[in-house]
Amino acid sequence: MKRLLITGAAGNLGKLARARLGHMAEVLRLSDIGPMDPAAGPQEEIVQCDLGDEAAVMDLVADCDGILHLGGYSVEGPWKDIQTANITGVYNLYEAARAHGMPRILFASSNHAIGYHTQDKVLTVEDPMKPDGLYGVSKCFGEAMASLYHSKFGQETAIVRIGSCFEKPADRRMLCTWMSPDDFIHLIECTFRVPMLGCPIIWGVSDNDEGWWDTRTARLIGWRARDNSEIFRAEIEAAAPCPPADAPESLYHGGKFTAEPIHK
Amino acid sequence: MKRLLITGAAGNLGKLARARLGHMAEVLRLSDIGPMDPAAGPQEEIVQCDLGDEAAVMDLVADCDGILHLGGYSVEGPWKDIQTANITGVYNLYEAARAHGMPRILFASSNHAIGYHTQDKVLTVEDPMKPDGLYGVSKCFGEAMASLYHSKFGQETAIVRIGSCFEKPADRRMLCTWMSPDDFIHLIECTFRVPMLGCPIIWGVSDNDEGWWDTRTARLIGWRARDNSEIFRAEIEAAAPCPPADAPESLYHGGKFTAEPIHK
Amino acid sequence: MKRLLITGAAGNLGKLARARLGHMAEVLRLSDIGPMDPAAGPQEEIVQCDLGDEAAVMDLVADCDGILHLGGYSVEGPWKDIQTANITGVYNLYEAARAHGMPRILFASSNHAIGYHTQDKVLTVEDPMKPDGLYGVSKCFGEAMASLYHSKFGQETAIVRIGSCFEKPADRRMLCTWMSPDDFIHLIECTFRVPMLGCPIIWGVSDNDEGWWDTRTARLIGWRARDNSEIFRAEIEAAAPCPPADAPESLYHGGKFTAEPIHK
Amino acid sequence: MKRLLITGAAGNLGKLARARLGHMAEVLRLSDIGPMDPAAGPQEEIVQCDLGDEAAVMDLVADCDGILHLGGYSVEGPWKDIQTANITGVYNLYEAARAHGMPRILFASSNHAIGYHTQDKVLTVEDPMKPDGLYGVSKCFGEAMASLYHSKFGQETAIVRIGSCFEKPADRRMLCTWMSPDDFIHLIECTFRVPMLGCPIIWGVSDNDEGWWDTRTARLIGWRARDNSEIFRAEIEAAAPCPPADAPESLYHGGKFTAEPIHK
Amino acid sequence: MKRLLITGAAGNLGKLARARLGHMAEVLRLSDIGPMDPAAGPQEEIVQCDLGDEAAVMDLVADCDGILHLGGYSVEGPWKDIQTANITGVYNLYEAARAHGMPRILFASSNHAIGYHTQDKVLTVEDPMKPDGLYGVSKCFGEAMASLYHSKFGQETAIVRIGSCFEKPADRRMLCTWMSPDDFIHLIECTFRVPMLGCPIIWGVSDNDEGWWDTRTARLIGWRARDNSEIFRAEIEAAAPCPPADAPESLYHGGKFTAEPIHK
Amino acid sequence: MKRLLITGAAGNLGKLARARLGHMAEVLRLSDIGPMDPAAGPQEEIVQCDLGDEAAVMDLVADCDGILHLGGYSVEGPWKDIQTANITGVYNLYEAARAHGMPRILFASSNHAIGYHTQDKVLTVEDPMKPDGLYGVSKCFGEAMASLYHSKFGQETAIVRIGSCFEKPADRRMLCTWMSPDDFIHLIECTFRVPMLGCPIIWGVSDNDEGWWDTRTARLIGWRARDNSEIFRAEIEAAAPCPPADAPESLYHGGKFTAEPIHK
Repeated sequence: MKRLLITGAAGNLGKLARARLGHMAEVLRLSDIGPMDPAAGPQEEIVQCDLGDEAAVMDLVADCDGILHLGGYSVEGPWKDIQTANITGVYNLYEAARAHGMPRILFASSNHAIGYHTQDKVLTVEDPMKPDGLYGVSKCFGEAMASLYHSKFGQETAIVRIGSCFEKPADRRMLCTWMSPDDFIHLIECTFRVPMLGCPIIWGVSDNDEGWWDTRTARLIGWRARDNSEIFRAEIEAAAPCPPADAPESLYHGGKFTAEPIHK
Repeated sequence: MKRLLITGAAGNLGKLARARLGHMAEVLRLSDIGPMDPAAGPQEEIVQCDLGDEAAVMDLVADCDGILHLGGYSVEGPWKDIQTANITGVYNLYEAARAHGMPRILFASSNHAIGYHTQDKVLTVEDPMKPDGLYGVSKCFGEAMASLYHSKFGQETAIVRIGSCFEKPADRRMLCTWMSPDDFIHLIECTFRVPMLGCPIIWGVSDNDEGWWDTRTARLIGWRARDNSEIFRAEIEAAAPCPPADAPESLYHGGKFTAEPIHK
Repeated sequence: MKRLLITGAAGNLGKLARARLGHMAEVLRLSDIGPMDPAAGPQEEIVQCDLGDEAAVMDLVADCDGILHLGGYSVEGPWKDIQTANITGVYNLYEAARAHGMPRILFASSNHAIGYHTQDKVLTVEDPMKPDGLYGVSKCFGEAMASLYHSKFGQETAIVRIGSCFEKPADRRMLCTWMSPDDFIHLIECTFRVPMLGCPIIWGVSDNDEGWWDTRTARLIGWRARDNSEIFRAEIEAAAPCPPADAPESLYHGGKFTAEPIHK
Repeated sequence: MKRLLITGAAGNLGKLARARLGHMAEVLRLSDIGPMDPAAGPQEEIVQCDLGDEAAVMDLVADCDGILHLGGYSVEGPWKDIQTANITGVYNLYEAARAHGMPRILFASSNHAIGYHTQDKVLTVEDPMKPDGLYGVSKCFGEAMASLYHSKFGQETAIVRIGSCFEKPADRRMLCTWMSPDDFIHLIECTFRVPMLGCPIIWGVSDNDEGWWDTRTARLIGWRARDNSEIFRAEIEAAAPCPPADAPESLYHGGKFTAEPIHK
Repeated sequence: MKRLLITGAAGNLGKLARARLGHMAEVLRLSDIGPMDPAAGPQEEIVQCDLGDEAAVMDLVADCDGILHLGGYSVEGPWKDIQTANITGVYNLYEAARAHGMPRILFASSNHAIGYHTQDKVLTVEDPMKPDGLYGVSKCFGEAMASLYHSKFGQETAIVRIGSCFEKPADRRMLCTWMSPDDFIHLIECTFRVPMLGCPIIWGVSDNDEGWWDTRTARLIGWRARDNSEIFRAEIEAAAPCPPADAPESLYHGGKFTAEPIHK
Repeated sequence: MKRLLITGAAGNLGKLARARLGHMAEVLRLSDIGPMDPAAGPQEEIVQCDLGDEAAVMDLVADCDGILHLGGYSVEGPWKDIQTANITGVYNLYEAARAHGMPRILFASSNHAIGYHTQDKVLTVEDPMKPDGLYGVSKCFGEAMASLYHSKFGQETAIVRIGSCFEKPADRRMLCTWMSPDDFIHLIECTFRVPMLGCPIIWGVSDNDEGWWDTRTARLIGWRARDNSEIFRAEIEAAAPCPPADAPESLYHGGKFTAEPIHK
């Protein structure tokens, strides 16, 4: 690729992507709503952009050959913030992509789109949505937009339902939901490498011993997760007592998000 | 019920509901964005209300025991209009319901939430969403909101994917998607009568000979459609030539909506 | 048939069967644990028998060409009673059938074998067991025994998961679970008439507008229910207020059985 | 239609079609391998044609707007005969259709393509093939050809798995498999009337009380069977004793075909 | 855990558990119907107990934090013996658990609950029961009891359908059904470690090259089998000729159990 | 085995089998339509044979204990050639096997039997056929023949849907469909080693990172693929540019076969 756009580039996942995806394109265009630190390096462009600003997003997407859409509101929060970033923002992004040659998109969806399923159930990507908050609902919206633009215009998107992508899992539930940075980077590479992507839903999760997601669609793009949260189990179990069986983090795929109120 | 709120009461479905649901509640509260004609009769209240106005919707829902949510933007159109009415509006409605005792809701979803499925396939409610436009995407959003409020707060909603509800079908495709006014009225009665509703998805369609939807969930609320579009076939076939096999109205559940551009 | 055995012949279903099945066999052999009233009429034999008594059951089954097994404990109760009648009793019955030429059996199973499924779900016979009490567990046992004797010896059984078979439904839930006496009699006729029965599971329920069971296996034996509880709706709704949405009778297929304690 | 081709027009189904489909086209072109009786009436053309003869079939199909393909070998028989009529013949037919504008085809497939499924199982059109003889295998072949020409060229075919189409059912098994002539005629009308046909599989069976086929795909073309073999039950049961449970006609969907040897 | 109860502690699996689970609890309470050898070591309690004795089981379970229920009749045998140990015994165990704080249970179910499925089919835990003997039926009963106590009281159980747990596989069929002692010990650890267990069904089998069970539910508890029977293949194939294709051990998941008579 | 017949022994797969299967039988009988090179070695018999010649095939199969059926037309081509080799030839083979004790058969089917499925879909063996050419249709036919002879006579066949079996993958699509020679040889060994084979469908593909086939049935015969096309990725990607997303080789399981015309 000549130019890969990374939205949300100042966030955790964005920083990871910025640091490790230089080989994928001649130029990384890095965007976030706030200022970016450090400043643009060689082969980097930095564009400050509010996803809720239609014209700005239109400019942002111009000349890009691929979009890694990590931007938006990424936790539970007030509706207006979520709506601006994840509803209006996603509409703006897809319209901009349509105007600019439909570069392939990796859309960071979330396990919170299905977070009210209980942890005694193995989910496939065909199982129904069960969002666990307004954030989760906004991800259902995003998946629907991806589907529409694929059906109507042929726009390709990898819908990646990210579990928990950190250096290492932080609690018991993340032993199930953890995706290692290495695995995520490889997933991104696979998304932009496969000849025909279509619009698949892929669980963004490592090859953990424990988990609830049937990852068979990963093979559609040639992605095979290599890491396993099991190596962190002893450390995590030592750090905190096991949560009770009826705690939100024990009961639901979405964990504590299910216990969040509607934020005002 | 003491008071049943009907949103979108000035629209086609709203007028039908207004005319025929007097027996269901002591008072019908009728709401629309514009003025209502005729003026409020006995046992009626008229409240002009923009669904995008959070405070107004909060007032609108107060003291209601049931909500027939027919309001919103009901065709393909400019994003801002759809977003205000069907995204912001649905959020406002569910928040108002939560604040006011969670009256049961019938949410008018649409076949356009699955409109890109092809007509050679029988769909169940478990099949994946495939919206055919921004309007369809907004209905996917609404279904996700209904799911969230049910999981998190116990709010009950009948998600009714309405086909085409008119006095009679207007074209070949509506022979498949037609729901008679009588059947719709009965569906509304069933929704508010069943002891436990939960949050089911129900195809809003009559017992037509031709069709693509497996209506088995209707029995969950005791609804059995009685009408059949077949009695209108001769008339419709006489009125217009058969559309070609590759026309949008022949190919897709959503018909011509699939051929709509993004409106600006 | 020359001789049809009816167990539980002094119970409600047994009396119904006794009164209406005279045309099916030259002799009806009627059995129950207590005395039977009235005494044996023409073409009837009465045999008092405790199903828990292995030798007695062995004699009971001799010379029969068909068995309508309605006997046993039919509500929630103390474990020892359920075990004697429905566990030991069913073992005794199948062993006796095996010794006496394997007459075809209709086994009265129950919706209480799946009673903990919620009423917002349409069940097929492939859905997992979810018994709602010790009685329900004993029916799961009986279904497993029927399966074993079919696989191992070719013994045929119609496993009929009876809803609620009375003259008319008695409450809101029975609008869903009601099987009319006429429909039940026809179901029995079909069971003993079909050339090959195998060991199917069949929902014993009329063609009610409201319900939760996908009755497609009924056609395997040529049974089409004709009655509909809807004609009793007005009467039932008038007799009692609608139960709340979170009452056991509104929530679960098994209704109030789910609220029963373990009886001692 | 201007011209509807009926192959196998001298056979039982062909005669039925000839007698009753005059309203569907200006001209019926009637074809069979042998001489036809009676001779061509008004609005009829008679073309004697061996389906195994490529050039003859090419001529036969010219100028036709629809094809009702009832021709071929329709019972178990020697391989060479089946191969000529049902393998070579089907290839010839599809190639001729491709050369002549791809008129819509109704392909008479058969329950014998799935005849080894047992009668204690409800089949959908997604269940795997299980042919019960060389004839059944030839029908699997025909269904595969229909699929290929649909995928590759857009040729439309209704694959109709015919049960037993006679004036009335002739034995116990046909109570399950019977399709009335009226229902068949209506099925043909629906096939050529629906705007987009695609390549669906449809069970060709009436609305019999007893049966093993889930007929939901019939609604895709607007076909609702109206007749029911039940009215013939008494007559059939009186005419012959019930076959034993382990007889081929009791065990398998395909009945006695499963007991046929390979013919030489 | 403070105290882990192991029933059937004098049996093969019980000895294995006794020897290897000392790290899981401060005290292992070991129980069997007969005398135990060797006598209680440090951190061990030995309680001789007949599972059919209600009062004794009530005492047995007191003060335990977890139950590894390996006890009961574990092969095909006379009904009375199986009923006492596996029917009455399981009822007694669940009642005792309910009285004593509902310690988590691992219930040793068996492949013989589904033993009549044929070996050309991959089973998931959703496939229907098909017990291959009275022993298998008693395991279906036990699974139903576990389901009931989970639905009604929240009692958690891991239902483990054990294949064949020995040092090494003993015949051809065990190449498919073998679970290594190491894998079983790890499975037990996982069962008592997972924050929320629920009531899942888990195939108790190693990661063998050959097999018939889809083990995806193992991940729900974080269990990943590590061993593979393949390393024993040469030895086993050398020891005995391949059984014929129609021998019970070649045909059915349950192997020779399907060929057992009803024991008297 | 005493004698293993390999048809198509002069082809690529045949040569591979010839070179590597000497340990499986005392004698390899090698057959092809043309002359074989090199001549028969020790423990080899060479029989030149046209599969379309019924008598010759009858002789060919005599005295064989197993058949590796690689022969026939293996690419898209003129119908007459495909019919002779793959239709008539398969009939001849199964008839010969039936006459000669029904030696177990490995039937080389092909991904081209399902080639029109799109690459954004994971297929199981239950998914419907979608042949991508006349060659693919002939493989559907062969699978139906295998099913018939298994149901009717007990003839066992492993239906192996071969992807692309070469020393290494040759293009992007083969990264998904590649089966290594080692894996194929092991698959053959497993087929003839398992006590009961039945008539399973098995995807003939290595354990590639990228792919579209759910290989769970491989475990039914104890086959675990070990190789992975990923090691060739760099080489292949360097050799040619990525095909566009709408090229046949990017869109369909069957790749370029879908773009082949009907050959004359």
